[in-house]
Amino acid sequence: MTGTVYLVGSGPGDPELLTVKAKRLIDEADVVLHDKLPGPEILEAIPGEKREDVGKRASGEWTPQEYTNRRMVELAEEGNDVVRLKGGDPTVFGRGGEEMAYLAEHEIPFEVVPGITSAVAGPEVAGIPVTHRDHASSVSFVTGHEDPTKEESAIDWGALAATGGTIVVLMGVGKLPDYTGALREAGMAPETPVALVERATRPEQRVAVGTLDSIVDVRDEDGIEPPAITVIGDVAGERERVKAFLQNERLDDGQEATEDA
Amino acid sequence: MTGTVYLVGSGPGDPELLTVKAKRLIDEADVVLHDKLPGPEILEAIPGEKREDVGKRASGEWTPQEYTNRRMVELAEEGNDVVRLKGGDPTVFGRGGEEMAYLAEHEIPFEVVPGITSAVAGPEVAGIPVTHRDHASSVSFVTGHEDPTKEESAIDWGALAATGGTIVVLMGVGKLPDYTGALREAGMAPETPVALVERATRPEQRVAVGTLDSIVDVRDEDGIEPPAITVIGDVAGERERVKAFLQNERLDDGQEATEDA
Repeated sequence: MTGTVYLVGSGPGDPELLTVKAKRLIDEADVVLHDKLPGPEILEAIPGEKREDVGKRASGEWTPQEYTNRRMVELAEEGNDVVRLKGGDPTVFGRGGEEMAYLAEHEIPFEVVPGITSAVAGPEVAGIPVTHRDHASSVSFVTGHEDPTKEESAIDWGALAATGGTIVVLMGVGKLPDYTGALREAGMAPETPVALVERATRPEQRVAVGTLDSIVDVRDEDGIEPPAITVIGDVAGERERVKAFLQNERLDDGQEATEDA
Repeated sequence: MTGTVYLVGSGPGDPELLTVKAKRLIDEADVVLHDKLPGPEILEAIPGEKREDVGKRASGEWTPQEYTNRRMVELAEEGNDVVRLKGGDPTVFGRGGEEMAYLAEHEIPFEVVPGITSAVAGPEVAGIPVTHRDHASSVSFVTGHEDPTKEESAIDWGALAATGGTIVVLMGVGKLPDYTGALREAGMAPETPVALVERATRPEQRVAVGTLDSIVDVRDEDGIEPPAITVIGDVAGERERVKAFLQNERLDDGQEATEDA
C-alpha cells in the first residue's frame, strides 16, 4: 500500500515556530527527508533512524531536486509515510510546486502543510510589519538568488518599486548592490529605509538598518551574512519606534546589533 | 510589575496550524484578547475565564482598534501577561504594526509571534504554490478591503500586473469585479487563471477556479463568500495538475467544490 508524502514547512528556524501539525507528522512519519534549511535545533530533535538528508547529494548522479523527487516516490511506493521537511513554507521559493507536480504525476497521495515563511517572520520579529495602514498597502516577495539557468532576471524591479508597497527579498545578501541599484534607477527614493535580518528567530539573529543608499555599506561594516532577508520600504523605519520594548530582541543578547539608519 | 503583551498569529483556521509557541503562550497567559478571526475551534479551546472578546465593541465609545490598544496597555499595567490573538499573521494586514507602535509608546514590553498567513496557506492547501520556478518569480499580497477613509485606492493594480508575479488578494470576494477589471485594463491576459479559496484549512474549505474573465461568474454561481482569498496568476493553473492526489482535499468531503477553469 502506497504511503503518503507530506510537504511540510518547518518555519524560520525557531523550533517553537513549528506548527502543532508539523510536529505531529514528524513524530508519526516513517521517514523524514530534509536538507539543512530547517536548521540544527529542529533536525536534531528528529530521531536519527528516520532522518534522511537529501541535501548531501549535490555531487551525485542526479541533481539534488531530481534525486529528492525520486526518493519521495520510491519511499512512498515502499509503503512509507514520508515527511518532506522544508525550511520556511514549502511553496514560498521552496520548490514545493515542483514537488507537488512530480508526486501527482507519479500518482502518490500527498498533503501540503504550511509553515511560517521568513519573508514575514524575519521582518516582524525585528519590529517591522510587512504591511501597514499608513505605509504599505501591499507587500511583494522576491528572491535574490534566481535560477542561474535563466538568461536574464525575471524580476521587474521597476514594477516592484511602482507598487509603492514593501519589498521583501529572500536570499538577497549577495546581490544587494544589484537590486538596490535597480530600485534607485527605477526612481525609488535613496532615503527609503532598508533592513537586513540575519538568521531570523534563531539565537544568533542580527538586525542591521540603513537606507537604499547606505545599506550595502551597512552590510559590509556589520558583516551580515546569509541566510538573511532584506526588507525595503517605509515599514523598515518602524523598527526604530518600537525596538526599545521589543522582547524578541532578547535574542540579540551578547550580539552586536548595529543600527545605522 | 508590568506584564508582557504577546502579539500572536493564530494561523489560517485549522487549530493544528497554531505554532507550538502560540499554544504555549495561550496556556501561560493571564488574559487572551481576541476577535472572531482565529475561528471557533481555536477560541473554544481557550478557557473561558481568560478569554476576552475585543471584537464586540464595534458600537462602543471607542473604535474597536482604539479600545483594543487601550485594553492591552491597561491589562499589562495591572501586571497581566496578555496574548493578543489575531487571525493569520499579526502583521499581514493585521494592524500588528499599529499595535506594536502603541505598546512601545506606552512603554509596554511586547513580543511578536508569527503565525501562518492565509495568503500563503490558502493557495497551497488548494494545490497552488504562490511562487514557481517556471511561472512566478515573485508574489504580492494586497487587501481587497482597503481602509475606507482613504480617498482613493492606494493599490496600483497596473504595477502589480507589471511585476509578472502571482497576486494574492485577501478579503477580496466583494470587490472581485473591481480589481479583476483593473487588472484587465492594465493589460493582464483575460485567460489568466484565478482561484478563490473560501475558509482555507477549515473543514468547510471550498475552492473555485476560473480565469480573469470568468471568475466573477464562477464566484456568483458557486456562492463563494467571505472569508476567502483570491490567487491570480499562472500558478493558479497548477491546481488542475495535482488535485487528484492532493489529500488536503479531504477537507472538501461532502462539499460542492466546483471547478470551472
